Amino acid sequence: MKTSSVLHYDVIVIGAGHAGTEAAAASARLGARTALLTTNIDTVGQMSCNPAIGGVAKGQIVREVDALGGLMGKAIDATGIQFRLLNCRKGPAMHSPRAQADKKAYQNEIKWLVESQPNLDLLQETVEGLWTEQTSEGTRIRGVHVRGGVTYQAPTVVLTTGTFLKAIMHTGEEQVAGGRAGEGTTSGISGALRDLGLELERFKTGTPPRLNGRTIDWSQTERQPGDDQPQPFSFLTDQLPTPQMDCFVTYTNEKVHDLIRANLHRAPMYSGQIDSQGPRYCPSIEDKVVRFADKDKHQLFLEPEGRRTHEIYVNGISTSLPRDVQDQIMKQIPGLENAQIMRYGYAVEYDFSPPTQLWPHLESKKVAGLFLAGQINGTTGYEEAAGQGLVAGANAALQVAGKPLFLPQRDEAYIGVLIDDLVTSGTDEPYRMFTSRAEYRLLLRQDNADRRLTPMAHSIGLTDQPRMDRLNQKLSDIARGMELLQAGRIEKAPADRYLKRPEVTWEQIVSHVPELATIPAEAAQQVEYDVKYAGYIVRQQEDVAKQHRLAERKIPPAFDFESIKPLRNEAKQKLAKVQPVTLAQARRISGITPADIALLMAHLENRKPKSKPVGDV
Amino acid sequence: MKTSSVLHYDVIVIGAGHAGTEAAAASARLGARTALLTTNIDTVGQMSCNPAIGGVAKGQIVREVDALGGLMGKAIDATGIQFRLLNCRKGPAMHSPRAQADKKAYQNEIKWLVESQPNLDLLQETVEGLWTEQTSEGTRIRGVHVRGGVTYQAPTVVLTTGTFLKAIMHTGEEQVAGGRAGEGTTSGISGALRDLGLELERFKTGTPPRLNGRTIDWSQTERQPGDDQPQPFSFLTDQLPTPQMDCFVTYTNEKVHDLIRANLHRAPMYSGQIDSQGPRYCPSIEDKVVRFADKDKHQLFLEPEGRRTHEIYVNGISTSLPRDVQDQIMKQIPGLENAQIMRYGYAVEYDFSPPTQLWPHLESKKVAGLFLAGQINGTTGYEEAAGQGLVAGANAALQVAGKPLFLPQRDEAYIGVLIDDLVTSGTDEPYRMFTSRAEYRLLLRQDNADRRLTPMAHSIGLTDQPRMDRLNQKLSDIARGMELLQAGRIEKAPADRYLKRPEVTWEQIVSHVPELATIPAEAAQQVEYDVKYAGYIVRQQEDVAKQHRLAERKIPPAFDFESIKPLRNEAKQKLAKVQPVTLAQARRISGITPADIALLMAHLENRKPKSKPVGDV
Repeated sequence: MKTSSVLHYDVIVIGAGHAGTEAAAASARLGARTALLTTNIDTVGQMSCNPAIGGVAKGQIVREVDALGGLMGKAIDATGIQFRLLNCRKGPAMHSPRAQADKKAYQNEIKWLVESQPNLDLLQETVEGLWTEQTSEGTRIRGVHVRGGVTYQAPTVVLTTGTFLKAIMHTGEEQVAGGRAGEGTTSGISGALRDLGLELERFKTGTPPRLNGRTIDWSQTERQPGDDQPQPFSFLTDQLPTPQMDCFVTYTNEKVHDLIRANLHRAPMYSGQIDSQGPRYCPSIEDKVVRFADKDKHQLFLEPEGRRTHEIYVNGISTSLPRDVQDQIMKQIPGLENAQIMRYGYAVEYDFSPPTQLWPHLESKKVAGLFLAGQINGTTGYEEAAGQGLVAGANAALQVAGKPLFLPQRDEAYIGVLIDDLVTSGTDEPYRMFTSRAEYRLLLRQDNADRRLTPMAHSIGLTDQPRMDRLNQKLSDIARGMELLQAGRIEKAPADRYLKRPEVTWEQIVSHVPELATIPAEAAQQVEYDVKYAGYIVRQQEDVAKQHRLAERKIPPAFDFESIKPLRNEAKQKLAKVQPVTLAQARRISGITPADIALLMAHLENRKPKSKPVGDV
Repeated sequence: MKTSSVLHYDVIVIGAGHAGTEAAAASARLGARTALLTTNIDTVGQMSCNPAIGGVAKGQIVREVDALGGLMGKAIDATGIQFRLLNCRKGPAMHSPRAQADKKAYQNEIKWLVESQPNLDLLQETVEGLWTEQTSEGTRIRGVHVRGGVTYQAPTVVLTTGTFLKAIMHTGEEQVAGGRAGEGTTSGISGALRDLGLELERFKTGTPPRLNGRTIDWSQTERQPGDDQPQPFSFLTDQLPTPQMDCFVTYTNEKVHDLIRANLHRAPMYSGQIDSQGPRYCPSIEDKVVRFADKDKHQLFLEPEGRRTHEIYVNGISTSLPRDVQDQIMKQIPGLENAQIMRYGYAVEYDFSPPTQLWPHLESKKVAGLFLAGQINGTTGYEEAAGQGLVAGANAALQVAGKPLFLPQRDEAYIGVLIDDLVTSGTDEPYRMFTSRAEYRLLLRQDNADRRLTPMAHSIGLTDQPRMDRLNQKLSDIARGMELLQAGRIEKAPADRYLKRPEVTWEQIVSHVPELATIPAEAAQQVEYDVKYAGYIVRQQEDVAKQHRLAERKIPPAFDFESIKPLRNEAKQKLAKVQPVTLAQARRISGITPADIALLMAHLENRKPKSKPVGDV
């Protein structure tokens, strides 16, 4: 006799990659009984592609994830092998931390953090189906069915399937079902989502070959060391692992490009074997050669995959060309002439669910209680996945607890920009973050992520007291620093006014106001930026305030945009598709004009539109 | 245009588990250009079952693998979390080192050692077929075909497929194709082997559930610490990692046994769903309950899977019972009442190739140049796999170089016993090593593996100079210790005679002959054992000498046993099947009598048998 069994949780997270682990950990931090289900516990937190965390705009997201109590910053700080602050000669809005990871150590560290999280159960299960029910309000998730006749029941489910939905890997003409080398694919979930009315589309992404470091002639490459004074990702980290390891740089050349052009018909992207869209900003080498035909070389970074491995990741040469072409390419690249490929590059095609089908808190509009995060929403990148995962997991837990949702806004976090872009505009290629996507990027600096987000997170229970205590100490240091600065006098003028001059450094100020030397470096940096960029910051804050007034104008759920007769048909259709929750979100939908917004606002307020449309918000 | 490519090696090893990694490393140490092919480089050296190395008789094998320059001892020394010398209150022949491993760290360390080995290329490839040719002397291997239209050519191939040949995993009624959770199976190789005339049979093995250590009530279990003075496995290791971690012990009880008996019809082994044989000496809990029906409890060891994981391996409760029964069992075990299963236990059925089809150097009798090692030969255990792998890899390389084969004998190594048992007697259940299988176990001690094997290995180039230098230093210390001992006088008698008394310890001797304190501990132990057990050792060496005389009587290849008319039919059949290469091997075939041997010997010497059969050899 087989007894069928049901396990009860508040939140079930499916998939334990970068989105799933943050989702589960965030949910558990909020006190929700959380199950994290993965088909193979040995692959929790696996870095399927590059052995690195952060980078331009992505590093900011990691700092935000950390400020919100997440895992990614702690894990990379514990297992990084090289730390760099990118763009450090530009203004602070552009400063972006990045680190090379010891790939396997990172993965194990994430697993350890997940395993150590109270309220969180990490379980090896293969999900075979979603359990839903029809209610008077529509479809609602009830849980998931797993292999072995067991059901997990929960009011909320977070789906983070990465590249595993109906995945096909391509290396030249060779096609294999699977989301990662040696691993399988998941087809049941795709079918279940379609049955529930979710649209699915296909994206592709790729990986470069991994080389045997012993076969590289390093003397022909340029050394790229880490920073002399490496900066951690987590606001809680005091010490980073040492010593740092070097990366190296080499370049493609015309011979390589000729080779690729001559073999384009064998590249699945160009042969028609793949017709889904790949990431524009993380293109394959064949894409680069075609799209930037005038460039005579492309930079390649040779990145160690860990402290105790000779495997080298070749950043910049993601490819799905056949393996013989990959071999020939290497022979033409300085330093790699005799390089042996240990794992060939490949592209992977997978199902994703266009994210305009989600509410801003990442819940499906079609299936109540079902949250989606990570690559299933059409994004690329570990950091983008982590940010979404954290928000989805937190909102799943908050919904179960009947508490207000957690909605970081565009002026509060890159994570807010990311999610708003996704749910408002969707994406027609794998979405990655850039600083240019953030209109308030001077507010969204990597250095102030804790000031921006930790109080918000702490107020809902997403972070713990030690983190808040640490921030409070910093805030008090900042206040003290500001007082000292304003009280100081240089050439009879207040020191803060002197600091505003572009050429004046904090060190010069300290030489005039020695008490400032007692302010810890992190706090001093905040004082400096607060003063130096005060003009810009105030202007951006005024914009934000305008935007907030629009954001306060809520649009009721299931609002009938057809009922606004004077509205253009295109506007009606777009509004109906996205179902914006505020006027501010409606305003950001591509193709929606200020005039449309004015009509909508007027209708909502049940009065005639003003003669002048709302300003540029 | 697709160019098909061929890569040339001396030795190709398929599979990078415990057999494959030792095979590839041994081959490469001997100077053969070696390719190690695995479907997923991330699983090199993976501990699929228990997170431990060594144990009774197995620990001796690890010491031998190390003495032969292998990887296993170094890797466990670098990543062990608890070290114990088992049976240390018994005589030195029974002393067996065992260590708990940090499972993931062990795997990564093996990968690192493999990656760092000169002449060895670790490559991610999926083997799709064997390439053979027909010659006047029969079938010969030429290489292997891998996914992507590429061929690896080599005169020798070592096949180490583990549990992956036509693998099916069972958890109760649930069956899934695959050799390990989340991984696939290999069916092409099974077909290829059958086509080549190799017989295949089915074995099964199992794993226990892994528990969430945070849900165990440790207060109800018994603590089992490591040794105060932990001893390394490798003869080259000076320092072991600290601190050691504890294991814990609990027990099953009648309630558990009742539960199992009540659910036996749902156990694949008993329901008829599996009819292949499992390991008698590493039985599933359902086997134990059936076969040892009078026992009212069985010991369970709770073993940590690493330093930074809460996963706990439950040693002693391997099972393929359905998951609901596994859950119920836990509830009845002291300390585990609330334990959460993170990964359920399962059994796996797989193809193996009965090893009597191999020559003693582990080459197939049917396919020249094809070597088999590990679970494909019907064994169980990481150590048994490693020992075979090392011998197979070494012989593949030696064959390519046209050098004499490497054949450790029964009186030289447990590895010799293991291989002779396999190729001479075969096995009708997964074979594991025991001290009782070795007739000369006082010679085959774990403490003298270097003295026994390193000179032999060094003479063929299997080990490096530093290892031999270290042994030479030890041998010179032993010689000096022996001289000092024999020159010393205690109560007017030579000190060595005094030491022979069972109750006398080395420490007592040193107190009388203080110069002996200058002899390093490892060498002193050898002196002590050489003296104390001299009588037994001499007797075993006499036996060995007798055996060697028989071993010198070679039987020609393809010898026609039918031609010996007086030989019993049963003897003819068994001899024809095993094709022993010496009279000594013929003597060890089960069912072959001393009289049969006498006839055979007479025939070989072309003279009448003596009236008296050969003595008990």
